[in-house]
Amino acid sequence: MANDKQFVTEITPQEEDFSRWYIDVIKKADLMDYSPVRGCIVFRPDGYEIWEHIQRELDRRFKETGHRNAYFPLFIPESFFQKEKEHVEGFNPELPWVTEAGGDKLEERLAIRPTSETMFGHMYAKWIQSYRDLPVLINQWANVVRWEKRTLPFLRTSEFLWQEGHTAHETEEEAREETMKMLEVYRDFVEEYLAIPVITGQKTPSEKFAGAVETYSIEAMMKDGRAVQAGTSHYLGTNFAVAFDIQFLSRENKQEYVHTTSWGSSTRLIGSMIMVHGDDRGLALPPKVAPTQVIMVPIGPPKTWDAVVGRTDELFAELKKAGIRVRVDDRTDLRPGWKFNEYEMRGVPVRLEIGPRDMENGVCVLVSRISGEKKVVQQANLVEEVQTMLDQVQREMFERAKQFMNNNFYSVDTLEEMKASMEEKRGFSLAGWCGSEACESKVKEETGATSRNIPFNPSEEKHTCLVCGQPAKHTVVFARAY
Amino acid sequence: MANDKQFVTEITPQEEDFSRWYIDVIKKADLMDYSPVRGCIVFRPDGYEIWEHIQRELDRRFKETGHRNAYFPLFIPESFFQKEKEHVEGFNPELPWVTEAGGDKLEERLAIRPTSETMFGHMYAKWIQSYRDLPVLINQWANVVRWEKRTLPFLRTSEFLWQEGHTAHETEEEAREETMKMLEVYRDFVEEYLAIPVITGQKTPSEKFAGAVETYSIEAMMKDGRAVQAGTSHYLGTNFAVAFDIQFLSRENKQEYVHTTSWGSSTRLIGSMIMVHGDDRGLALPPKVAPTQVIMVPIGPPKTWDAVVGRTDELFAELKKAGIRVRVDDRTDLRPGWKFNEYEMRGVPVRLEIGPRDMENGVCVLVSRISGEKKVVQQANLVEEVQTMLDQVQREMFERAKQFMNNNFYSVDTLEEMKASMEEKRGFSLAGWCGSEACESKVKEETGATSRNIPFNPSEEKHTCLVCGQPAKHTVVFARAY
Repeated sequence: MANDKQFVTEITPQEEDFSRWYIDVIKKADLMDYSPVRGCIVFRPDGYEIWEHIQRELDRRFKETGHRNAYFPLFIPESFFQKEKEHVEGFNPELPWVTEAGGDKLEERLAIRPTSETMFGHMYAKWIQSYRDLPVLINQWANVVRWEKRTLPFLRTSEFLWQEGHTAHETEEEAREETMKMLEVYRDFVEEYLAIPVITGQKTPSEKFAGAVETYSIEAMMKDGRAVQAGTSHYLGTNFAVAFDIQFLSRENKQEYVHTTSWGSSTRLIGSMIMVHGDDRGLALPPKVAPTQVIMVPIGPPKTWDAVVGRTDELFAELKKAGIRVRVDDRTDLRPGWKFNEYEMRGVPVRLEIGPRDMENGVCVLVSRISGEKKVVQQANLVEEVQTMLDQVQREMFERAKQFMNNNFYSVDTLEEMKASMEEKRGFSLAGWCGSEACESKVKEETGATSRNIPFNPSEEKHTCLVCGQPAKHTVVFARAY
Repeated sequence: MANDKQFVTEITPQEEDFSRWYIDVIKKADLMDYSPVRGCIVFRPDGYEIWEHIQRELDRRFKETGHRNAYFPLFIPESFFQKEKEHVEGFNPELPWVTEAGGDKLEERLAIRPTSETMFGHMYAKWIQSYRDLPVLINQWANVVRWEKRTLPFLRTSEFLWQEGHTAHETEEEAREETMKMLEVYRDFVEEYLAIPVITGQKTPSEKFAGAVETYSIEAMMKDGRAVQAGTSHYLGTNFAVAFDIQFLSRENKQEYVHTTSWGSSTRLIGSMIMVHGDDRGLALPPKVAPTQVIMVPIGPPKTWDAVVGRTDELFAELKKAGIRVRVDDRTDLRPGWKFNEYEMRGVPVRLEIGPRDMENGVCVLVSRISGEKKVVQQANLVEEVQTMLDQVQREMFERAKQFMNNNFYSVDTLEEMKASMEEKRGFSLAGWCGSEACESKVKEETGATSRNIPFNPSEEKHTCLVCGQPAKHTVVFARAY
């Protein structure tokens, strides 16, 4: 954009104001723009392409685990929400309603879907008759709307993009297995692809999905110490099966209710990734999802310029052919230093510099966005060298994020300790909890932190409740959350 | 589904009732189901997977021609529609309105997008400042809603899935070039991938897009002789640029309006494909988009069953490894004859049969869905043989459809001739037209046919208007249309 050339706007340092840093970065890197509709953003091409890479890989993993995609209607009749009591209470306050269409007032209001358990439930009841029809394993990529009071680009917007899996099974055991399998798909994807370490565990009853028997989540730590729920998987028991009458003839020739699950992840993942990896220079994108993995910057005085650019183009063709997402910036009205800053700000994982002397020597320089490491490499091995550095950046991003999470993970024994921890050090707190809603609410009131989940593998077991001092039923991760 | 085993429902013959044939086929092949929301369907996995193949290939072609994807909001403020007069008149009657959200009545009603020229226009005005920012070449994959009075699955539904490209250019010439380039992308894709021959041409003023200067289309002929508009590309001139104030500083340092285009194709393509290729046995899917390209049916008595199935599985693995979408039906409670009918009905392009004697001889039998041809092939060359037959089926489907279109294309000179042609022979009519709206309306009134387009390459030039007998300005294709 022309603007970038005229004004190099500063990015607010993270320490000064993390929220402003976030908005500065996503705007300046052209990932998004605000739209004229309250709480809705425009995903610009560089932001949307990150989503495309996420989508492609998650979709591959869903299909590998036996799921198929389908598409269900955007509109949900009002009466559907009344059928599952917890579900309607959970979602009613956030629904937008279509009341008129095609010039007429509608007889029944239509909600824009906030999630589709009810619509899937209605259709599954038609499709499932016998155990032979089970399991049904369907996923949907769609837009959903929740009319949020406070919004934040990518992390909490009125309309967002997501996928929602909805499955139906013969037995509780099989449905529970599916629930855990998909949680593991999310964990593995988020850690391997987005380089975000997460804590897997079970939600407390007050934080579970409206209508679920149990909810499991993966929780990630942002650089300001806050948590983001990066994916959830729900065991819904027979709640929706009873509400929508999804019965089947069992192997024993009896009518039984199916056991259902649902699981989802969304464009929040983009926001999380930015808050986990970005720094005061701007974005830092994991190579596996970066729209541009390598930016090539030819350097040199006018008399060698054409030769250097010519060689750059040859190397570009080689990298592109190898499937690397690479671009060349050979504009002559901008200095190399300006370009270096620009692509660091845009989070491009690897920069390739090549000048006249490099050309003579058959080398070029690779620079890592994350560590700043510079490496002189032979042009003859370029594809391999670039691939090696991309892998290294991917790994290093995960390790740094993991280190950060460990450094900001505190074990606390009392409410006072947690309060101090939240205010002075931020980060996550591990604490014992007796299991009562009263103690959980007290934590929120006093510290602003909510229970994130009951981790499967806590670093230590806590034995007393941090609020009431009674014996702990669970060891819980608490944090302030987005 | 269990149902299929219990009741083999008949498919209404095409000649008896084409509309019933269509509904029978898409329901029986599990492509879709009706939803509880008026005019909205559920795309079931086999229907949605066809869309995924269409999407993947079109997306590849859009990117190859320099476009990138983005995502814009579902909601469009009411005031936006008022800005372009023709546009509001065209779309207002079909809009659903959100009037309440999050428990409050909205100050301004929000439409669900029927198309997004207005939203793109609003954002482009913010992003485009100078000729250096041009061209902007963005596509969006999204759901849109038009509250249709009469609906038909895939072909005309209240909510449907589509892509909409929106581009902005410095000059009229460049925008016109883009308009034609994208029309050609559609033509080539639809002919090559969906095996549907089309007629490319320009829409008459009364049939053009609301807000366009000129609209171009590709038109396909269904097996009942009706037309479907399978893709459109619009040159919008400066209409939306003026309405949304999209100005840029030109190379001559003057403020100028951009020239814009838009182009779209949708899940109608699925319906068209079914109506072009299907027959009284059911669906016939072009190999390039068929969810299952090859169905393998092992045959034989119990004593050789395990051996035959074992060999089938080995061949399955080879085909799968070669990237062919293949499935095995080794159910023992269903006869081979039932399976043959079933997969013919589901439109699977190639069937592979293998029995004990074939096994001994190292051969198997391939059967083409479209011609019924049976070919004994060596197992040793199986991948190659299957690929050859898939290519042949794809080619043959196109040729048959082309032949059908030619056979049902009539040159007419008078309204009476067209009336007779429409009623007795159905199909498309080529006729001269003087260019007046009155004559065009008269054709519709008298024959039920509308002008489809003014073809770029008509088979003959017509010299007098079929209605008034005055000199013809254009040679036009007329047809009854979906």
